[in-house]
Amino acid sequence: MKRTAIYPGSFDPVTNGHLDILERGLILFDKVIIAILVNPEKKALFSIEEREEMLKTSTKDLGNIEIGTFGGLLVDYAAQKKAYAVLRGMRAVSDFEYEFQMALMNRKLNREVQTVFLMTGLRWIFTSSSIIKEAAQFGGRIDEMVPPCVNKKLSEKFAHNL
Amino acid sequence: MKRTAIYPGSFDPVTNGHLDILERGLILFDKVIIAILVNPEKKALFSIEEREEMLKTSTKDLGNIEIGTFGGLLVDYAAQKKAYAVLRGMRAVSDFEYEFQMALMNRKLNREVQTVFLMTGLRWIFTSSSIIKEAAQFGGRIDEMVPPCVNKKLSEKFAHNL
Amino acid sequence: MKRTAIYPGSFDPVTNGHLDILERGLILFDKVIIAILVNPEKKALFSIEEREEMLKTSTKDLGNIEIGTFGGLLVDYAAQKKAYAVLRGMRAVSDFEYEFQMALMNRKLNREVQTVFLMTGLRWIFTSSSIIKEAAQFGGRIDEMVPPCVNKKLSEKFAHNL
Amino acid sequence: MKRTAIYPGSFDPVTNGHLDILERGLILFDKVIIAILVNPEKKALFSIEEREEMLKTSTKDLGNIEIGTFGGLLVDYAAQKKAYAVLRGMRAVSDFEYEFQMALMNRKLNREVQTVFLMTGLRWIFTSSSIIKEAAQFGGRIDEMVPPCVNKKLSEKFAHNL
Amino acid sequence: MKRTAIYPGSFDPVTNGHLDILERGLILFDKVIIAILVNPEKKALFSIEEREEMLKTSTKDLGNIEIGTFGGLLVDYAAQKKAYAVLRGMRAVSDFEYEFQMALMNRKLNREVQTVFLMTGLRWIFTSSSIIKEAAQFGGRIDEMVPPCVNKKLSEKFAHNL
Amino acid sequence: MKRTAIYPGSFDPVTNGHLDILERGLILFDKVIIAILVNPEKKALFSIEEREEMLKTSTKDLGNIEIGTFGGLLVDYAAQKKAYAVLRGMRAVSDFEYEFQMALMNRKLNREVQTVFLMTGLRWIFTSSSIIKEAAQFGGRIDEMVPPCVNKKLSEKFAHNL
Repeated sequence: MKRTAIYPGSFDPVTNGHLDILERGLILFDKVIIAILVNPEKKALFSIEEREEMLKTSTKDLGNIEIGTFGGLLVDYAAQKKAYAVLRGMRAVSDFEYEFQMALMNRKLNREVQTVFLMTGLRWIFTSSSIIKEAAQFGGRIDEMVPPCVNKKLSEKFAHNL
Repeated sequence: MKRTAIYPGSFDPVTNGHLDILERGLILFDKVIIAILVNPEKKALFSIEEREEMLKTSTKDLGNIEIGTFGGLLVDYAAQKKAYAVLRGMRAVSDFEYEFQMALMNRKLNREVQTVFLMTGLRWIFTSSSIIKEAAQFGGRIDEMVPPCVNKKLSEKFAHNL
Repeated sequence: MKRTAIYPGSFDPVTNGHLDILERGLILFDKVIIAILVNPEKKALFSIEEREEMLKTSTKDLGNIEIGTFGGLLVDYAAQKKAYAVLRGMRAVSDFEYEFQMALMNRKLNREVQTVFLMTGLRWIFTSSSIIKEAAQFGGRIDEMVPPCVNKKLSEKFAHNL
Repeated sequence: MKRTAIYPGSFDPVTNGHLDILERGLILFDKVIIAILVNPEKKALFSIEEREEMLKTSTKDLGNIEIGTFGGLLVDYAAQKKAYAVLRGMRAVSDFEYEFQMALMNRKLNREVQTVFLMTGLRWIFTSSSIIKEAAQFGGRIDEMVPPCVNKKLSEKFAHNL
Repeated sequence: MKRTAIYPGSFDPVTNGHLDILERGLILFDKVIIAILVNPEKKALFSIEEREEMLKTSTKDLGNIEIGTFGGLLVDYAAQKKAYAVLRGMRAVSDFEYEFQMALMNRKLNREVQTVFLMTGLRWIFTSSSIIKEAAQFGGRIDEMVPPCVNKKLSEKFAHNL
Repeated sequence: MKRTAIYPGSFDPVTNGHLDILERGLILFDKVIIAILVNPEKKALFSIEEREEMLKTSTKDLGNIEIGTFGGLLVDYAAQKKAYAVLRGMRAVSDFEYEFQMALMNRKLNREVQTVFLMTGLRWIFTSSSIIKEAAQFGGRIDEMVPPCVNKKLSEKFAHNL
């Protein structure tokens, strides 16, 4: 039996912090399904297709990874994919509380799905998609924080700003 | 002299966690006035009338409760209602900081009104109106987290989603 | 029926922060029983008798207060005193977590006893018996943080240091 | 060589808490440049010009202060102004985490700029521009929390509410 | 290849919260080695032998579990046992910070060992060995918080108190 | 006029994290006085003389540094040394609360002394004297976390353990 985990998020865009968690996750699980949350009410910088594309490019050497999208309950998506775990990275105390609440709610909704927390590497403790977008918008150098394909895409998006 | 407390909130919708705090509050106070915050700038799922209706139905056996609405300063509403306490439930650390700041501001505005914190029961530590709405929207079972009338109303609201 | 609350602590020694919580508590309750925790394993600066004496002196004008000691379970002491609430003051986030854990444990042990949290006044947010003892030990001026009788006692205790 | 620090913020409007940090900052630095963040996507109550005006009036007796605006990267603005420090005030745990993440990002973007944290005075621990606006909107007395010129401006803005 | 994890702790004594984490861990891992930390400087209630005995009794139906002791570096013990993960349960924010620091230190000492965090079930969020001992000492009912053999042992230890 | 700051601590022993804060502090201040806290009640690994010696060796190239000891109130020591600031490094949320309380107490005791917080570099966010001693005690490699002279001293202290 394959041990499969879901790694959910917005990935708008994927960062080196995400890739770090994915690599660690692939030590624990046989397969990790990256699940892009489709949320029509949240304004995103990149389209779902762009996000998928960047994820595909930057994870192509990582191992047994699948990329999908979901718009309903995470636990339903996990059940449908026969995943028995949700993988989450943690960086800070404020992350922790939100993650805890979500994990308790998800367990309430489906007791079969475990939430597993891994620690982001120290180098990525301050990176987040939103802080990176903020820096990139004004020409800040962010090439050490994102994979090359994301760096290129961000430069294109914000070219007119500079 | 009656000991009256105000229990303010959005109640969009009322949850079992709110009812738990109300029951505990009625041990401490002779009367609790539920005060629905009217905030035109915050998008709500239910109208003020719907929220009042659900509160009325779910608190009808609880004891000396009054349901009202307010749109200005909480301390002014408390003074007008001759309430000498504001009742608040707490669940988590992040709640705590916001509550603390609000309580200090309210004391600054009116020293006569005390803020009293009660602890949500362990079973409700992860429930919040917003997380429940999120689950209900995609058909998650939430019947243990809300009173029956709210469960019904949520099903109706989100019927088209399923 | 009298509404009685227990206000437990070490009170080694009582501070103005404690008195502030007591005053607020006496608005909510008809009677507050100050319960000095007798813990033979914890090294204290003042004996139980000294602590009782200082509490008696500094609360003599406050209203319906009783001073007692307890060495077992707080909830048992509360039941014996027919108190239906435990009064606690809160100052900071780290307080909060410990208080929360204790309150949950106490509720588990006796569901009839509510824990009620009041907020320490802003002026006392940084005072604690231990930080005050530390300052007093080296001659720091602490007269605004403790009642006069405590200030005098602390000066005597630490007279040899100066 | 002059020691110059940047004090960035929205200042919508300036509060007594900001002025407190500025006064403390002027003990450490020879010059402090107040840098109003221009963020077209964030809805503000006051225009940039109004905010500048209120800052000018309320800091006119404070010492070597300059008032500017920036819309790009803070570290670029600091470099352009030959400032070697970013001055930040802290009030609470939740502030701390956000500040920490920003400071780490800024250091990543420009290692020459130090972030220096000062503690807000106890009296201002609960004030924030947003909580003050909320109170002022409904006629709450906020004259002890803001400089007189801001109090006047807020009254004018919200005159129609009352 | 067997996936083995180390579950380190004092287990003085084992609680239902520990058993909950163990059960969850056995879904993720093929084998979990419970590693009792031998720390001569920390005063314990139960001897290492007693703790091992209680662990053995209460985990006998759980699956592939081994019980050991360690006194040096956790990562060395993990390497010696060919475990590639350290299993930790988390309950609260204050846990989180300490766990984070330990995990970072362990990664620094041995990059091959991952720390994996699981969330304690809601029912055990307030239990800890120390708070249980405190309650048991004064005759508090703790039978729902510990396995039967621990309940019995605690009663014996504290029999003379009652 | 020289701008002098006090950098207080136990320094048992000095770590690379301390040296990082010192270097940053010397950008802000003309002189930094390292003040070793002499606390007879706290068990230390190294004597005051050993700690001074290690500090002297590892800071000899850093700039205008003085090394002293103090046993009373920090603010008195600062006044005596004509220092107008206390320098503190911060790493984590739990640090923050304690630091905040100490800074408020110190301000209460002497309003002339400012507490200035700098952020520890990301690489040192998980180091602390106590966690390093714990690792060194069992032969963990800690040479990247402490200056060479401290690494040598720690090896000597714990030689018998291995």
